[in-house]
Amino acid sequence: MSEDQTIAKVVAAARDFLGERMTQNASLREHHARGQDTYPPRTPDAVAFIETTEEAARLLALCNAAGVPVVPFGGGTSLEGHVTPVRGGISLDLSRMTAIREIAADDMDCRVEAGVTRDQLNAHLRDAGLFFPVDPGTSHCTIGGMCATRASGTNAVRYGTIRENVLGLTVALADGRVIRTGGRVRKSSAGYDLTRLFIGSEGTLGVITEIQLRLHGIPEAISSATCQFDTLAGAVETVIAVLQAGIPVARMELLDDVQMAGCIAYSKLEGLDAAPTLFFEFHGTPASVAEQASGAEEIAAAYGARGFAWATDTETRARLWKARHDAYWAALGLRPGAGGLVTDAIVPVSRLADAILGVKEDILASGLTAPIVGHVGDGNFHTVILVPPEPDGLERAWALDRRIVARALDLGGSCTGEHGVGLGKREFLVRELGEDVLDVMRSVKRTLDPQGILNPGKIFLN
Amino acid sequence: MSEDQTIAKVVAAARDFLGERMTQNASLREHHARGQDTYPPRTPDAVAFIETTEEAARLLALCNAAGVPVVPFGGGTSLEGHVTPVRGGISLDLSRMTAIREIAADDMDCRVEAGVTRDQLNAHLRDAGLFFPVDPGTSHCTIGGMCATRASGTNAVRYGTIRENVLGLTVALADGRVIRTGGRVRKSSAGYDLTRLFIGSEGTLGVITEIQLRLHGIPEAISSATCQFDTLAGAVETVIAVLQAGIPVARMELLDDVQMAGCIAYSKLEGLDAAPTLFFEFHGTPASVAEQASGAEEIAAAYGARGFAWATDTETRARLWKARHDAYWAALGLRPGAGGLVTDAIVPVSRLADAILGVKEDILASGLTAPIVGHVGDGNFHTVILVPPEPDGLERAWALDRRIVARALDLGGSCTGEHGVGLGKREFLVRELGEDVLDVMRSVKRTLDPQGILNPGKIFLN
Repeated sequence: MSEDQTIAKVVAAARDFLGERMTQNASLREHHARGQDTYPPRTPDAVAFIETTEEAARLLALCNAAGVPVVPFGGGTSLEGHVTPVRGGISLDLSRMTAIREIAADDMDCRVEAGVTRDQLNAHLRDAGLFFPVDPGTSHCTIGGMCATRASGTNAVRYGTIRENVLGLTVALADGRVIRTGGRVRKSSAGYDLTRLFIGSEGTLGVITEIQLRLHGIPEAISSATCQFDTLAGAVETVIAVLQAGIPVARMELLDDVQMAGCIAYSKLEGLDAAPTLFFEFHGTPASVAEQASGAEEIAAAYGARGFAWATDTETRARLWKARHDAYWAALGLRPGAGGLVTDAIVPVSRLADAILGVKEDILASGLTAPIVGHVGDGNFHTVILVPPEPDGLERAWALDRRIVARALDLGGSCTGEHGVGLGKREFLVRELGEDVLDVMRSVKRTLDPQGILNPGKIFLN
Repeated sequence: MSEDQTIAKVVAAARDFLGERMTQNASLREHHARGQDTYPPRTPDAVAFIETTEEAARLLALCNAAGVPVVPFGGGTSLEGHVTPVRGGISLDLSRMTAIREIAADDMDCRVEAGVTRDQLNAHLRDAGLFFPVDPGTSHCTIGGMCATRASGTNAVRYGTIRENVLGLTVALADGRVIRTGGRVRKSSAGYDLTRLFIGSEGTLGVITEIQLRLHGIPEAISSATCQFDTLAGAVETVIAVLQAGIPVARMELLDDVQMAGCIAYSKLEGLDAAPTLFFEFHGTPASVAEQASGAEEIAAAYGARGFAWATDTETRARLWKARHDAYWAALGLRPGAGGLVTDAIVPVSRLADAILGVKEDILASGLTAPIVGHVGDGNFHTVILVPPEPDGLERAWALDRRIVARALDLGGSCTGEHGVGLGKREFLVRELGEDVLDVMRSVKRTLDPQGILNPGKIFLN
């Protein structure tokens, strides 16, 4: 049978239970050709809008038998090419699985379908006095996608990444079996940690359809602050000193002078200069928040901070953090017409000054514009490389990206703090972990997906 | 070749690089026949005292080629039969791998060999103002053994279990390859989470020889407290309310009336009655600790607590927590001549009152003495069932243990919070997770250990 015939057969069989939700409509296929990345798009042969775990499992069993690739698709916000069906096949769209199945306020946990977005969940939780802390840069990413890429965000320094906030998963396996890993308890020593094995597996080991999540109480008091520095070094040294002082800061974000110029223009931030800036947030009781904040202020002042500005009212805080989350759009605003290539790297916190000052030099040498933002409390930082609209623009941007990641590895870091490997970090993964570690990962992959239908071409170069 | 000849050949080959550290000495073999459990002992055919990762790898390669079982042995403190070589073979003793290789105070991490004990590490760290928080009930357990069983302890409610405190591992695989998983960064999305796969794998997937650990700053202020209740229900409801109030308690331990009677006698605790008791510890700045403590006191009082007693000086605190850690010995002291069978189960925190009050009834119905202690902040609790020295004593104790674990599963819990599956929880694992999940675990096992030499007979019934 030709490839086209195989696809046609799978599509016809899936129509039996998906009806019109199994589609080969051209514009829907086009919409599933890429995420928010700069890799070459490829349209899937068909898109399946599944609504239940059972539908995902039936579709997988069909595709497994026919050897047709399946690429899970959530919010379509991947920055590393995860959702591009590089070998064709079916885009398995989970964005309609948006049920919040259960909120257990007493246990501070909940069960959600994979297509629930973090904004949807937090809006739902607000009245219960609870929140879900993991907050990647985009608000319409899905919880399933966050699990698949081991995502984090600005709160990870205090609340952990998605890894620490998932209690259990429902996963449809390549052969159509469905398993539930973990459970509702806070910890367990009951066998292999399959939950953590699927988290960060980027759709290559199974399709995550439901998630049991830990939640956290909305703190009694929250206070945000900004302060500015004449030098990047002063800002980075403040971060290290705050961590070492044991101040339980909830968020600590760095924006460099270029990023601040973008944010001031895009988000109408008043009273701030285009200079290296730290955004802080403190959670706790009113007394504890005040104590944390004054501790951080004292440390920042010692490293040359000026203009410590407080935001305790909800509205000012919300505006500040919206500006931080809009940093990508603000960066794009610096060069109208330019695309954005977002770099993700992480180093041990002690090497953060070396990393960021070095990256600043790399950017200067490249002649490109590339603001730096980062969850510097974990050592994780991003640059938004503005891709000039010239013929060699993308190539130059990629060269700078490679240089930045290589620098992080040289400093004992990792090639991705939170965006995942996808297509773009495959070569760096080998350099970071070595062939033997990759061999073990590949053997696990072969065990769970012997036909190689699950998101082929991702994580591994071969 | 007979089994004896095969063993003799492996022993002779291993002597080439281990010399006298590869031994068949009868008393050394006897010492490696069991942990601190009540399962039938079995002596290994030989004991290998390895001192390096390379020695572990060479030994594994030899045993893999010959099909000889290898059972890792650390502090010998397992409560679930993990170190018993139920199918004979080699006990691979890592207790001489006690080097603390590197302390990175700036990054608050360190690298240790698998045989380092938590007491050794904390003594070493004290001058640097750092500590390692994971503290199982025994002080001479090894970090390697804690990783293998996914251990935790009294601090987990605040600092997480070993799972959250390991950054990376060096693992010798069944075929003699050595891999390094993870790294030094605080988070990463670089491929499958092999670190978490080996944590809790109980020596069945590889032998952990070195560990990169997260450390924490010794808090500026620490305060401990005890309070007592007329009813178990009052104590348990206090725990739930403290958690829901978001008080970041560092430790919150429950001891029932029977356990308290034991501790008062064994540890000479003054001013406390044989009544349900909570032990608290608060970490932070002086002001924050005072605020947390008064918050907890207020809640406890509302649930009928009396005699809130504070311990801020180091000596009183140390005595209190030593008493808690000696609870097992104190329990044994209640019935001289009796053995101890330690039960481990965990439930969602909201079901804790149901679980513990039900267990109290089970104990009464059994006619046995079984004090209850627990890390109730996570929903994890233990009973020390005193095994009467009669012929049917162990059988009766096991029946009670089974009853307690079954009750936890009925309440949506897990069959082990921190001791692991080993031999005793294998049947419950199937009931808790289902055959499909077990099948996935078994397929991962076969991939990494195709000859089945690594700690055979543990975790899986077949």
